[in-house]
Formats: sequence, C-alpha cells, structure tokens
Amino acid sequence: MYSFMNDYSEGAHPRVLELLLSSNYEQNIGYGEDIHSERSKEYIRKLIKKPNADIHYIPGGTITNLIVISALLRPHQCVVSADTGHINVHETGAIEATGHKVVSVPTKEGKLTPQAIQTVLDYHSDEHMVQPKMVYISNSTELGTIYTKSELVAIADICMKNQLLLYLDGARIGTALMAKENDLTLEDIANLVDIFYIGGTKNGALLGEALVICKDYLKEDFRYLIKQRGALMAKGFVMGIQFEALFQDDLFFRLAGHANKMAERIARALKEKGYSFYVEPCTNQLFPILPYHTLEQLAKNFNFSIQEKINEDKTVIRLVTSWATSQDGVDSLIEFLSNIKENNRS
Amino acid sequence: MYSFMNDYSEGAHPRVLELLLSSNYEQNIGYGEDIHSERSKEYIRKLIKKPNADIHYIPGGTITNLIVISALLRPHQCVVSADTGHINVHETGAIEATGHKVVSVPTKEGKLTPQAIQTVLDYHSDEHMVQPKMVYISNSTELGTIYTKSELVAIADICMKNQLLLYLDGARIGTALMAKENDLTLEDIANLVDIFYIGGTKNGALLGEALVICKDYLKEDFRYLIKQRGALMAKGFVMGIQFEALFQDDLFFRLAGHANKMAERIARALKEKGYSFYVEPCTNQLFPILPYHTLEQLAKNFNFSIQEKINEDKTVIRLVTSWATSQDGVDSLIEFLSNIKENNRS
Amino acid sequence: MYSFMNDYSEGAHPRVLELLLSSNYEQNIGYGEDIHSERSKEYIRKLIKKPNADIHYIPGGTITNLIVISALLRPHQCVVSADTGHINVHETGAIEATGHKVVSVPTKEGKLTPQAIQTVLDYHSDEHMVQPKMVYISNSTELGTIYTKSELVAIADICMKNQLLLYLDGARIGTALMAKENDLTLEDIANLVDIFYIGGTKNGALLGEALVICKDYLKEDFRYLIKQRGALMAKGFVMGIQFEALFQDDLFFRLAGHANKMAERIARALKEKGYSFYVEPCTNQLFPILPYHTLEQLAKNFNFSIQEKINEDKTVIRLVTSWATSQDGVDSLIEFLSNIKENNRS
Amino acid sequence: MYSFMNDYSEGAHPRVLELLLSSNYEQNIGYGEDIHSERSKEYIRKLIKKPNADIHYIPGGTITNLIVISALLRPHQCVVSADTGHINVHETGAIEATGHKVVSVPTKEGKLTPQAIQTVLDYHSDEHMVQPKMVYISNSTELGTIYTKSELVAIADICMKNQLLLYLDGARIGTALMAKENDLTLEDIANLVDIFYIGGTKNGALLGEALVICKDYLKEDFRYLIKQRGALMAKGFVMGIQFEALFQDDLFFRLAGHANKMAERIARALKEKGYSFYVEPCTNQLFPILPYHTLEQLAKNFNFSIQEKINEDKTVIRLVTSWATSQDGVDSLIEFLSNIKENNRS
Repeated sequence: MYSFMNDYSEGAHPRVLELLLSSNYEQNIGYGEDIHSERSKEYIRKLIKKPNADIHYIPGGTITNLIVISALLRPHQCVVSADTGHINVHETGAIEATGHKVVSVPTKEGKLTPQAIQTVLDYHSDEHMVQPKMVYISNSTELGTIYTKSELVAIADICMKNQLLLYLDGARIGTALMAKENDLTLEDIANLVDIFYIGGTKNGALLGEALVICKDYLKEDFRYLIKQRGALMAKGFVMGIQFEALFQDDLFFRLAGHANKMAERIARALKEKGYSFYVEPCTNQLFPILPYHTLEQLAKNFNFSIQEKINEDKTVIRLVTSWATSQDGVDSLIEFLSNIKENNRS
Repeated sequence: MYSFMNDYSEGAHPRVLELLLSSNYEQNIGYGEDIHSERSKEYIRKLIKKPNADIHYIPGGTITNLIVISALLRPHQCVVSADTGHINVHETGAIEATGHKVVSVPTKEGKLTPQAIQTVLDYHSDEHMVQPKMVYISNSTELGTIYTKSELVAIADICMKNQLLLYLDGARIGTALMAKENDLTLEDIANLVDIFYIGGTKNGALLGEALVICKDYLKEDFRYLIKQRGALMAKGFVMGIQFEALFQDDLFFRLAGHANKMAERIARALKEKGYSFYVEPCTNQLFPILPYHTLEQLAKNFNFSIQEKINEDKTVIRLVTSWATSQDGVDSLIEFLSNIKENNRS
Repeated sequence: MYSFMNDYSEGAHPRVLELLLSSNYEQNIGYGEDIHSERSKEYIRKLIKKPNADIHYIPGGTITNLIVISALLRPHQCVVSADTGHINVHETGAIEATGHKVVSVPTKEGKLTPQAIQTVLDYHSDEHMVQPKMVYISNSTELGTIYTKSELVAIADICMKNQLLLYLDGARIGTALMAKENDLTLEDIANLVDIFYIGGTKNGALLGEALVICKDYLKEDFRYLIKQRGALMAKGFVMGIQFEALFQDDLFFRLAGHANKMAERIARALKEKGYSFYVEPCTNQLFPILPYHTLEQLAKNFNFSIQEKINEDKTVIRLVTSWATSQDGVDSLIEFLSNIKENNRS
Repeated sequence: MYSFMNDYSEGAHPRVLELLLSSNYEQNIGYGEDIHSERSKEYIRKLIKKPNADIHYIPGGTITNLIVISALLRPHQCVVSADTGHINVHETGAIEATGHKVVSVPTKEGKLTPQAIQTVLDYHSDEHMVQPKMVYISNSTELGTIYTKSELVAIADICMKNQLLLYLDGARIGTALMAKENDLTLEDIANLVDIFYIGGTKNGALLGEALVICKDYLKEDFRYLIKQRGALMAKGFVMGIQFEALFQDDLFFRLAGHANKMAERIARALKEKGYSFYVEPCTNQLFPILPYHTLEQLAKNFNFSIQEKINEDKTVIRLVTSWATSQDGVDSLIEFLSNIKENNRS
C-alpha cells in the first residue's frame, strides 16, 4: 500500500548515504566543529551570499523553533504566528514550555499578513499583556502555500518598522523555492528575514535542519543555547555530512523539485476528475476534498491523512509527496482515481 | 594523528549502516511508531525481562536527561547528583532551564553513595528549600568508574525508603556492563532503577539513546513530553533501525567490550611505564597523570583532552577508546609511550 | 473628580485596618503560620463546610493563578480559558512563563460552556498537541457576568467526565455571590470546583487572596510551590488578620453587596437615559455604550476606562464600583447623566 | 515568651500605619502609578543622588530576586552566589524555576570575594557549561556580616572587567548601613552595583521592597516582567505609602539603628558571659554558640532558631532583633543570661 502520508517516510537520498558511508571511519571533531559541517556551511553561505552568516545544524524542526524563539525573546515577549502555524498547533506547547506565549491570528491559507500583524500590535498596548517581539512564518506553509516576494517584503517591512524579529521556519523551504509560482531565492529570504532554517529532514536527509542566522547581533552564544536544549549533537558531523551532500551541488533543490512535480501530477489528475481543493495546490502537500465514497476506497489502497471533516459527505484529506515519491506510486494513485465511479463529486 | 579525544569521533558500526541502507526505501510510519522501532524494543525488553517496559528513542543524552527529569518532578522538586555528574556540569544548565535545581554532592571517583544522599535529605527539611525527589547516577560514570551490584542495591534502597526516583544515565552503559569488575546485568539495572537509558551514540550508532521506563506509573504521557522538548523525531525509524542492528544479537555488548579492551591495553602500557592514574582504569576512559614533558610530546602525535592541571608539572589527561578504536591506533600509542625517555615520571 | 476606574483604588475597610492596628505589636509566627491566619481559615472552612480544606493566603490574583496552574499541571498539559479570561489576556503571559499553554475559546459574555470545552477536547487528539487538563473560569467574570448553579454544575460535570481539574478565579467572587441573579453559595462553589480563590484585594483588604483547595489529593506541597514563586509572605499574618476581619462575620459579603448596589443604581440611571449595554449589568462592573459626545463630557468629570471602540460614535466604557464607592460619588454621576442632552443615544 | 526568632514578627512602625490610615479613602491610581509611590521614589532618588533611577515596589524579597535575575539573564546564563546566599538555599529553587542555575561558591561568613568569582569564571570555559553573567550578594548577609566599601569596590571591579552584572539583595540593607563597622552609604551602593533593593518588610513596613535600577540600559520593560511574575500589585499605593513614611525623613535608618543597638546589647551580654560566636556580631543577627544546658533553658523562655548543631554539646543559634524589639525584651534576655550558671561555656 503506497503511502502519501508525509514527506518523512523514507530514509535519505542515496548520495547522502554514500557520503555518510565513505566518511564513516574518519575521526571527526565532535559537536559540529568538524570539516564536513564547515564545508557544507560554506556552500550555504555562498548560496545566500552572506559569508558571515552563522549556521548551526539541529536535529529537528520543533527543537530548532524552540531554541530560536527562547534564545531571542525576553521573558515577557511573545511570538506572533498564523493560527495554523506549526508552533501554535503541533508542537505540544514547546514554545510555551520555554516561557513564551504564541499569539496566533486567523489566517487564510496559512499565510500571515502585515494587516494581521498590525492587529496584534494594536491590541497589545501595555505591560498587562505580553509584548510582541517576533513574527513566525513558515514557507512553504502548513497548508502547502508559499509567500511571494512582495508578500515577504511587506512582512519584513512591518517587522522592521516595529522592531519585530522575523523568523522563517523552512522545514519545507525546498518545495517553496521550487514551486512554479515562487519568485523568491534563498538569497532573498536570507536578506529579508532575520533568522531561518533550511529543512533537511523532509528533503533528503535522515535528519537535520540548518539554522541560518542572518543578522550579526543575533548570533551571540547560540551554541550555548543549542547545547542547553539538548540539540548540540555529539556526532554533529552526521548532519554536516548530509548537508554537504545536499548542497555541494543543486541536489537539495532537485529533490524538492521532484516532490513538487509528483504532487503536480496528482493534483492534475484530481482536478481532471473534478475534485476541488481546500487550498489551491502549489507545493508537495495537496488538500483535495473527497466525497465519503471515494475516501473510503482510497483508504483501502493508499496511506494519507485526514485534514478535516467538512460535513457528512465531504472530507479534506492531505496527500504529501517527497524526494522519495516514486513515479510508480503516483501512477498507481492516478490510475486508481481514473477508475473511480461516482456521481457526487465535490 | 590518531584521536583518543572521545567516543563519538566516528560514524556507526558497519552493520548499523547496512541496515540503514537496506531499509532506506521502505515507507515507515513517522515518529517512532514503525516496525524497526518496535522490533528493537522487543529485543531490549527480552534482555531486561520486562515485557511491559516502555522504551523511547531520543536523539541525545542531554535531551534525554532533561526530558526525564522535567517529566517526573513537580516544580519544587530537585534532582540529586554527584558534583561530577553530567547534568551538573556539562549540560549548560539544561535541567535548570526546565525549572529544577540540581543539588550536587562531592563524590569520590564520580560515584554517589547512600551517605551522600542521606546528607542531602537531612539538609532539605522544609518548604523554604527544594524537595529532593530524584537521584541521578551515571554508569559508567564521567570518570570511567562503575557501580557494583551491592552499591547500586544500596542506592536503590535509600531511594525506595525515601520515595526518591532513581534514574541512571547510561550514555556509557555498554562499557560499564562489559567492565571486568562489573557484576551487574542490564536486567539487574532494570530491576533496581526506575528509569534509565541505553546509550547508542557512544557505542556504535550515528545517534540515539534508548530510554527505558521500568515502572508502570511513570510511563504516562511520555510521548507528549518527548515531543514538547523537540525530541520526537519525524524519522524515528532512523534510531529504531540502528538499535535493531545493535540488539538483534550481542553486537552492542561486543562493541563496548572492544572499547574496554583497547583501553585496557593502553592502561597496561601506561602502568608499565610507571604512570599513575587520577582514577583507577576500569572502562573506556583513562585518566593518566602525565609530566609536562610527556604531555607535550604526546600532544604532537595524538588527540586527547586535558582533564585537570594538578601542578606545574603534573596534568591529568583523558584518553577515550570506543567501538571504532583501531588496534593500529592503540599500537601506535603504546609504541610512542615505550619510546618516551624521561626521568621524572609521575 | 470621582473615579469609577476600578475596584482597587482605595485602601481597606476600616474594620480591617482596626484589626491590623490592634494586633500590630503582637509577635506573630512568620510565613502564615500565625493564629490570625489559622482563625480566619477556620471561618472560611465553616462557611464552605469543608473542615479539611487547605487554605493559603497569597498577595495577588495573577500570582495565585500562576501558582495553581503550574502546581497542578504536568509540563505538556494546558489550561482551557475563555478568550476574555484574565490569564489569557491580562497577565503578561504569566501562565506561559511557567511553561503552560492557555488554550482559549471564544465566548459570549465572558462565560465558558461545556460545549466550548468539548470542542477543545475533541481538537486536542494526540501527543503532537498540548493535553487539556484544567478548566479556568472566573466568577464574576471579566465582563461582570456570573455563572448560575446549573451552568457551574454542567461545567463541573464535563470536567469530571474528562478528568479535567476545575479552577475558579474568585478575584470578584464577592460580587458574584451577592448578585441578584446568583443562586450559588460559597459552599456550592467549594463542592463543585477543585480549587478556587476568594479575592480580598478587590473587596475590602489592602491585599490578599484566599486560595482554597477543596480536594485532598491536590493539597500536597503547596507551601513549597507558593514559596518558590515568591508568594509565601514573611509577614503572612498581615493577610491573615485582614481575612479575619472580613470573615469573622458577614463583612465580606456586605462589602460586595454594597458594590453591587452602587452599580445597580448607576445601571438604572443609564438605562433610564436610554443607554444600552455591551453586557447586561449584573455585578459591580458596568459596560455601557456611549456616544462620543457623552463620553467626552463624562471623561471631564469622572475617571473610568475605555473597553472598546465600536465605531466612530459608539464606545463601550467600563464603570466599576467597590466596597468603598460612596453614595455621593454615585449621586454625582447620576446627576451628571440626568443633565446630559443629546439626540443620538446608543 | 519574647521572640528573637526573626525581624518580621510584628506589623509596621506606627508612622507607617498612620499614613496608611490617613490616606485610606483617597482614590489612588492602581499598579503603582499613584502619587505616594512617586513621592517616595523621589525621596529615594535624592538619597542616592540618581534622579533617573527606576524604582519599583515589589511585595517580597524572593519574588524581587527572581524577577531581577530572570529579567536580566539570557537562558544559558547563571548567577554566582555565596553558598549561604538566600537565592541558593532558602528560596525553594525560585531562581531555577525561572530557568537559571545558581552557581554557588563556599564563603567565609557569607561574603563573596573577587577570588571566588574569578574561580567561577575560570571554570566556566565553554558552551557546555552555563555562562556566568551576574553576581548576587546580600548586605547585610544571611550571617549578619557586611561588606566594607573596599570589598564592594573590589567586587564591582571584577564584575565590570568581566561584564558581569552586580545585584545586591538589600533585604537587610538598613542594618548594614547602620552598622558601626559600615563605611558605605546608600549612594555608594547605588554607584557600585547595577541593581539592588531596599528591604521594607524587615525594617518597619507591613510588606514591600524597593527595587532600584541604577543603570539605564537595564530598565527596559521591567513593569512587564514584574507583572508577569505576579508582583505588580493592584493596590501598589499600599507599598508606596509605606515607603513614603519610611523615607520622608530618616525613619528607615533610625529603625535599623534601633535593631542594631538592641543586638549590640545582647551581644555584649553574651560576650561578658563568655560565649563565643559563630560569626562576629555586626548587625541585627547574632549567632552565639551555646552549650546544650543553656540552650535548653533559653528555649523555655525565649523564641529563637537553631542555626547549626556543631557537636553533642555545642549549638549555634540565631537571635534576631528588629525595629520593634523592645528594651524590655532585651532586658529580660540579658537578665536571664546573667542568672545562668554553668561550667562548660563555649
């Protein structure tokens, strides 16, 4: 039964594994101070044209988020997030556990806007309320949507005007940058936000996220903060090696491109069959609305997750592709869809 | 230049890598609910004869420590540790960052005693002081020493009498159990402590520690707590697979045995040359006391760390071996030692 | 200029001050273990018919809230609150600072319902989200409304069924119990909730809240937790004496009754002049909707706060009365209202 | 039975109570923004000759300590304290509960030294350990000793050189400044430390400490931080009024002088009887060493606390005087001592 459950079902891209194997018996320095980590950071620094950017490898997205937010806020300050933001919903209160409120705002398609941020600023007027100090966005978002350059510029503007830090969660930054509608480069992002991370776990690595600190004044003592939260890995080189494989050429981007392409094929097939979408497809996450009959049949043949039940008959599901999604898997899904017979399509 | 700097310089044992490779394209369930995780947990449960033990894979030691301690203590409760304990010294205040005081006591050779624990209990008499609720020990300790069965029984006894939880940090549990002087089994440990972890990072894995919860009443909601601290890995199967390779037979123990054997050869050579030790050698960490002249020469040929400067001429260094330490590396060190000429041996 | 800004503008009721004076040179035991604290607790225990209730005096409402919530929740658990709840809005993230998420739900007139609680329970389905474990309500609420007995019973029921703790913030419990529409007694509340507090600061004391723990299994170690948060006052007897004065007879209730009566007179006058209310008046907080013209004139003669601007012309203000509100103050407000001439009343 | 248990057994000085009474029906602004708070702050600012110092009234010492330390440290930073420091021993882990390690050093007579601070700095060398960022001292100390001007200058120097913040806990600053051996003024302290507090609770007030922030760059957002920890009192004027009474003339200092004088009389009588002291008497806390026989008799007639049992026969007790200690109380103690007959004096 082929799975479209998520983009972290398989191991790592073969080239990532090859480099792990070929360097296995090297004696590397611990805690990320090895040559592979350094080399891969250089690749990323060149890509974003920031030779002085600080980069740290951290094993997962949630722990990256909690390190960044707790490192940069004072106790009374909060982070502003879309209500669908990962930190607001799916991190078991990880941010609050470090002492900070996540102030969430309702959003359309998972994207924060300057207007929404302004509303939060207007509301938080005095010392009886938390003080907004950081804006958290994800790209691509939890709903698979992406920010355009002008949208990101507008958010960066309101942040700068109000001395808010802008943090971009790039767990799926690869698919965002490889989306057809995208007009941002990794360099643009590094110029517009204060700090962001490049997700490896969901794009070809066994594990690992590359936290990029773009602004000098935010760099201080991050290794202390990473260590304190338990994310300074003894074998940091295990992540360094993987990012070396992903960024020594354009592998990282090709993998994300593949994920998007597989999703696009599925989306086209769904549209041809007349299904509508909860959110217009854009990257590697698809949210088609299925009638109960179809849902039932699909579940017998494929793995995926339920996003939301709209009513008795209509359900939003989530289909996710990845660097590892096979043409065969996609073909079988498309074939399955073409054979479905039903009257009441959504 | 061969390195005896630590036991996390190399990657993973070949058999661990092989299983990662051969299962790379499987579509596994995320967040540690995959079959490899389940299978490897069964191996461990059988070994400790606790079919109901809960086991969780966590990427590193510090984060395991902070999860366990913050999961099981109420806000006003503290954990008692040897002054040399990893949580007291080398985790950048990770435990305090979750809100709990580490009450440390001076110890001999890194080992906690019932007497030391009793002193802490006697001192903490009322609500103006933190309340001792957990005892933290490591085995093997940060100084390479181990607990005998009678010592561990005595600590477990005082804990039980005083309703203290007993937590064993097993970052180097392999070398402890394979030490010549050891009379404990993994099963004994599981019977005597409330919760412990089996260290993979320092004994053959790329990363990963197996947290074992021995008591039923401590199990509740641990997956929430692991997630909240950012340690519920999306690709949890990456750790499951590695522990499968380590525990499907006795590989885990053989690797630790190798590390000890290599250390023993070095220790013997050092003793033959007349060097004394800060702590009597027992497992894979050696703490010889070297005169300045020797230290200087050694540093030109090998990597190791300085533990403590005793005086102008005497320095305690730390030499560490691991599953990956080669016979050649050890031979070269022994040969180097045999060629040293000096009058003022320690 | 008379102030209706809040119910903490004046000092303490004369009888409270008298007892402070007459006992001033007694040598009392510190940290709340004095005879005045004990005597006053006995008064309260009798009133609620719970001879074994634990009662602790704490200097303020926010610190009481953060102590209770952090004392009773494990790290991954959250508290459910109305969106208007004091802990959600006006405590500068005090609850989050202890590590816990406040999950808020939209409410009508500041009151939580079983339906709203059920929605939260349904949504929080697995370990990737925080776990609801406590329900927070205030009575009277931040909008001056109160819970009826049947409403509180219904909330207590859903809490019991789902093993949720029920905590009632009684900063204004006096005015709630003395409201005309009220059908609850203090004893009822003590039977229905797990833990609550009786607000002294806003009802006749210089400072102080009486935290009442109704359930035995929740009592353990609260003095540690109060001390840790800095709320175990050296001169705890200062609060004990005040509660003694308030509860040795029905002074506490009479003071709240006075506040309500003053509010009622104002509400009647406002209604007679044709003003509508944001929330129907019930206790000592009134939320009339005023046209801009009236607002402007009122502000020149009285102190009050702006609750919300509805549109160009309509503004919700908040008028608060207290035990100290004078008949003269109220008369002058009513007279002022009767002289206002305007066409566009809200 | 007269009590020398502590300096917080009685209420407030009559002049403090008088001002509370005479201003009781004023309608004051809440949260410390009233005229009494402002006036009393002006008195203090003049005294320390710092017209721009920020001053905040906070209800108790522990909560002041935890606010200051958590406000000014980043998560990975620690505070250095004498092992006898209040934050290290008697605050139930309040500092750790905000996330910070207290690194304690053994001290002589409760006083920290530059040497001890340097040792901590030398030891904490990298990101695997917490980072020292603040030094905490108390004056007078928990053992009744005081810092001389040259000692405080030396500590301020090492702090400045190492970018450590210097925080002085002044719970008993009154008795320190009025000690015979003292050569510091309040102005000196304000010039030498970065932040300190003036203790009201133990020197004439019902409750309240005045936190003084001497350095501009440390002032930002303190009202948020005070509110978040639950210490921004609704009736902040209750503290403002008391400090107004204490500082409108030299009452604060006279009260501390009285406490010292009463202690001096007792100390002299003890010395005349041949008793030795654990720490040489200096302020209002005395630590005489008593033989068991005397201890037993004394305990039948007076209240005091046991500091430490030295051996079978010798015990260190603590006798504390205050602004409220009566001549009669002291006379009775002296008379009692003069009647004791024993051979084995310590």
